[in-house]
Amino acid sequence: MPLYFITGNKNKFEEAKAILSGVEQLDIDLPEMQDLDAKNIIEAKLAEALKHKKGEFMVEDTSLYMDCLNGLPGPFIKWFLKSIGNNGLAGLAERLGNNKAEAKTIIGYAGKDGDIHFFEGSIRGKIIAPQGETNFGWDPIFQPDGFDKSFAEMGKEEKNKISMRKVALEKLKDFLIKP
Amino acid sequence: MPLYFITGNKNKFEEAKAILSGVEQLDIDLPEMQDLDAKNIIEAKLAEALKHKKGEFMVEDTSLYMDCLNGLPGPFIKWFLKSIGNNGLAGLAERLGNNKAEAKTIIGYAGKDGDIHFFEGSIRGKIIAPQGETNFGWDPIFQPDGFDKSFAEMGKEEKNKISMRKVALEKLKDFLIKP
Repeated sequence: MPLYFITGNKNKFEEAKAILSGVEQLDIDLPEMQDLDAKNIIEAKLAEALKHKKGEFMVEDTSLYMDCLNGLPGPFIKWFLKSIGNNGLAGLAERLGNNKAEAKTIIGYAGKDGDIHFFEGSIRGKIIAPQGETNFGWDPIFQPDGFDKSFAEMGKEEKNKISMRKVALEKLKDFLIKP
Repeated sequence: MPLYFITGNKNKFEEAKAILSGVEQLDIDLPEMQDLDAKNIIEAKLAEALKHKKGEFMVEDTSLYMDCLNGLPGPFIKWFLKSIGNNGLAGLAERLGNNKAEAKTIIGYAGKDGDIHFFEGSIRGKIIAPQGETNFGWDPIFQPDGFDKSFAEMGKEEKNKISMRKVALEKLKDFLIKP
């Protein structure tokens, strides 16, 4: 029985596939609960998936947590982008006088027995005025600590090397290959 | 068959009962979808209710929409309060230099045939530093236009007279008594 990665995002799937060779993409739309805690959102999705289909599942959430907003937008990042965009987010950090932020991926994995495990990867950085291509959400406004460019200005390879998603995926991989 | 008002909030129910005499409270917990548009959240709740029980239903959403955040927090107000609180919201309006806001109630009504109708009431105002008792969410930071005190500083009667919820309830009442 394969491990299904529930996502509609082809890039995220490819990134997972590079680390977890046996994973398969399952592009179904699961309801996204309102919650500040991404783990609760992920858990609800996994529970929903388990209702419909047998197998092992993984769901991921990658969000931007801003210090000046005490962790917001977090899992609500999608809606912040829709309403105020990257310029609005960068403006907030500037006006509030604190540009520190965290980019965090949480992966939830549901095993054969319905047991659920979480794996995290995070990277600290700062919010800057948008720089680079706007290919992926808030990439243009997040500059990881130790770098002088935004995620959007990095090549795919360079970004993947430090990616919070990669860290979380590696942790899941370690868990799965444990005897 | 009665009209069920799905809410866990006794005050909201009492306010509805004063206008819609036949209404009954149904205190069930329905999942709250992530969406910027309260109508979509309400619609999903009504659909869920209709799956479980026959009858007429109403669901309401009362949210605070800030001009400086292009309408946020809107239906996410609960999570903004949890993370940055009234002080944080008031600080945002001040730092962003725009304190205009709207308090809006949307009621969704599902009729016997599963038809869904929406009724709105809204009131413009401004975001101020918290004033008055903190009985209800963001009442201390919302000052309706034409008044020199916050919702939290008003008596229940005074507030209900201008309440956005009352306007929406009256619209629903008019709809229901139409021949």
